[in-house]
Amino acid sequence: MDTEPLLLTPGPLTTSERVRRAMMRDWGSRDADFIRLNAEVCARLLSISGGVERRVCVPWRGSGTFAVEAMIATLVPPEGRLLVLRNGAYGARMVEIARRYGRDVVVQEDPEDRAHSPERLDHRLAEDPAITHVAVVHCETTTGLLHPLAELAAVVARRGRHLLVDAMSSFGALPLDVGRLPALAVAASANKCLEGVPGLAFVIVEREALMAAQGVCPSLALDLAAQYRAMAETGQYRFTPPTHVLAALREALLIHEEEGGVEGRGRRYRENLRVLVAGMRELGFRTLLSDELQAPIIVTFLEPASPSWCFDRFYDGLKRRGFAIYPGKLARRPSFRIGCIGRVFPDDLRRAVAAVAEVLGEMGVDDPKPDLELTME
Amino acid sequence: MDTEPLLLTPGPLTTSERVRRAMMRDWGSRDADFIRLNAEVCARLLSISGGVERRVCVPWRGSGTFAVEAMIATLVPPEGRLLVLRNGAYGARMVEIARRYGRDVVVQEDPEDRAHSPERLDHRLAEDPAITHVAVVHCETTTGLLHPLAELAAVVARRGRHLLVDAMSSFGALPLDVGRLPALAVAASANKCLEGVPGLAFVIVEREALMAAQGVCPSLALDLAAQYRAMAETGQYRFTPPTHVLAALREALLIHEEEGGVEGRGRRYRENLRVLVAGMRELGFRTLLSDELQAPIIVTFLEPASPSWCFDRFYDGLKRRGFAIYPGKLARRPSFRIGCIGRVFPDDLRRAVAAVAEVLGEMGVDDPKPDLELTME
Repeated sequence: MDTEPLLLTPGPLTTSERVRRAMMRDWGSRDADFIRLNAEVCARLLSISGGVERRVCVPWRGSGTFAVEAMIATLVPPEGRLLVLRNGAYGARMVEIARRYGRDVVVQEDPEDRAHSPERLDHRLAEDPAITHVAVVHCETTTGLLHPLAELAAVVARRGRHLLVDAMSSFGALPLDVGRLPALAVAASANKCLEGVPGLAFVIVEREALMAAQGVCPSLALDLAAQYRAMAETGQYRFTPPTHVLAALREALLIHEEEGGVEGRGRRYRENLRVLVAGMRELGFRTLLSDELQAPIIVTFLEPASPSWCFDRFYDGLKRRGFAIYPGKLARRPSFRIGCIGRVFPDDLRRAVAAVAEVLGEMGVDDPKPDLELTME
Repeated sequence: MDTEPLLLTPGPLTTSERVRRAMMRDWGSRDADFIRLNAEVCARLLSISGGVERRVCVPWRGSGTFAVEAMIATLVPPEGRLLVLRNGAYGARMVEIARRYGRDVVVQEDPEDRAHSPERLDHRLAEDPAITHVAVVHCETTTGLLHPLAELAAVVARRGRHLLVDAMSSFGALPLDVGRLPALAVAASANKCLEGVPGLAFVIVEREALMAAQGVCPSLALDLAAQYRAMAETGQYRFTPPTHVLAALREALLIHEEEGGVEGRGRRYRENLRVLVAGMRELGFRTLLSDELQAPIIVTFLEPASPSWCFDRFYDGLKRRGFAIYPGKLARRPSFRIGCIGRVFPDDLRRAVAAVAEVLGEMGVDDPKPDLELTME
C-alpha cells in the first residue's frame, strides 16, 4: 500500500472513481456544452446552499483561500470596517487578507478549543458601530471546531451588519440555509464535503451587493464582481477555467444528490466521526475538543506523552498501511489530525483505528495518553 | 460528433489520453509522494526554460492571468514604473493589473498587426529613466503575433531595466532561453504548448529578486514571494494545490520530452500551421498577419465579406463535424481564430480545412474573401 493511501485529511481528499473518470474529457471553455455544464454546477451549488433567491453562485479557480480573498477584497469596501472572529489559522488568514489590502480590520479572538460566543459578538457590535462586516469560519479546520453559525448570524443581522462566512469545511455536509441565515456571502470549496477534486472554489453571494461592488477589488484575477458580471452576460469565465475540475464537480454533485444531499452526506460523516473517536479513545487517545464542539469533518488528537512517540514514524507506519493522516496546526499543543470526510466510510475508519493500534505497538507506545499540562511556546 | 470536438483553440486544448489518465489518482498534498511529484514538475519546467541557474520555478494555481498578476504584483514595487508593450488583449490585461494595484504604469502601443519595435523601445527607455520594469507578451494570443523577444530583451538589459514576460502561448513550443535572455521573470501555463490540463500556471523567476520581494504583493493568494519561500522551506504549497492537474502536467512533460522537447513540439506546430494556412488560403481566406509575424500557435482569419457568412453558423457547422474553433478578439476587424496547438496533428488540420470547405458550401459562401476596407467601431 505504498502508493495511493486513503486520505484522512481536510483535503485534497479521496474521491470516487466516478468523479475522477469525469475528467477524461476535454472541454472547450467558450463552447455551449461547457457553458451549460458550468450553469448546471452553479445552479446545484446554489440549491445546496438553500440560497436560490436573490443570490448567485460565482465559481472560482484555485484553492478556497482564493475564494475567501475574492470575497473579502470585493465585498468589504475601503471605507468599511471588518470584524474577524478568530480562533484558528483560517480566521487568522482572513485577517491577513484584509490587512494586506489596507482594509480596516479588527479581531475578536477566542481560544482554539472554544466556540465564538454570540453574546460577546453582540457586545462588540454594540460597542463599535463602525464595524460594517463580520467574517466567521463555520468549521475551523485548524481544530475541527464547529461554530454556532446560526446564532452568530442572527446577532450580525440584528445589529444591521453584513456577514461573510468561510464555509470551506462544512458546505455540503452541514446544514447552511443561506436563505434563512442572513449571510451576505459564503465561500466554500469543491474539494471538501462535496468530494470533488481540488482546483475550484465558489462564493454564494447576494446578487445586489455584488452588482454594487463593481470596481472595489484591487485585484483583477480575484475580482468577484467583474467575474460575476462577465458570467451573467456571456455564461463564460473571464479567464480559462479548470474545465476538467469543473466536470469532476458536476459528477460529485450528482453523487451528493444520490447520497441524500446535505442530510445523507452529513449522516455518513457523523458515523465516520463516531467510529473514529470511539476507537481512538478506546486506544487511550484524547481529543482536543469536547464532543459538542466537534464537527464531523476532522478531529484533533493530542500527541501522546510517551517518550516512544514520534509523529513522523506514526505517519509513515499508517501510510504503509494505506492511510494518510494530517499534522496538527495548534498554536500551543502538539497534536495531529485525522479527517472523516471524502469517499471514506465507517469501515475505513475501523480499519484506520486498527492500523493506529498496530503502529503504536510497533513504536512501543503503550499508552497514548497526552500530557495535559504541556503547552508549546 | 456532437460531443467532444477537437479543440482548435488557444486553450483549454485537446490533451492526450495519457495526460487525462494521470488524473485518476488522488494525492495528499502534504505527503512526501506529492512533494516529490511537485519538485519534479518544477525541475522539468525550469529545464525547459533553459533557466536552471539562479532561477526558480513557482507553480501557480489558476489560469495564466493569475500567474501574470502574481508576477506583476510581487515584482514591480510601489516605487517602480512599469512600461507595458501592448498590441492586444493580453498586453492590455497587464496594464489593468498594474493600474488596479496603483502601480505606476505607462504603455507603448502598437497596432494589432505589427510587432513591437526594439528601436522604439530603446528610445522610450532612453527618454524615461524612471521606467524600472518592462512587460511584454511573447506571443499575443489576440492575433497569434510573435514578438521579437530576444531583441526586446537585449534592449531592456542594455538599458539596465527588468524584463517581465508573458510567455503563456509560447512556452514549450518556441525557444526561450531565460538563461541567455535577460528576463527577471517569465509566466506561462500548463495548458498551452505543454499540453497539460487547465488549472495550473507557473512563473520562472530570478531567485534573488524573489527573495528581495517579500512583503511587496498586496494580495495574500497571489504573493509569489511568500509562495516561493514556503515551498523552499517545506516543499509544500501554502494553500491546497490542484493535485490532479499537477499530476497531469507531469505526464504532459514526459510526453513533451518524448516528442523532442521544445524543438520537436515546435516542429509539429509549425507543420500544423503550414497545413492550416495553406489550406485556408486555397479556399480563399486571408490571414490577418503576414507570415513572418505569425506564431505557430493560433491563426487569425478575417471574416468573409459574403452576405451569406455567419460566424455562429460556421462555428456550429464545424462543431458538428468535430472541430471547435475560436471567436476573434480584434478591436477593429471582424475575425475568427483557429488554433494549431494541443494534441493535434497535421492530418487533423487537413480534415479541419476540408470541414471548413463543406460548411462554406452549406452556408452558400462562394468566396470567403474579406472586405479589407472594413473596420469596426
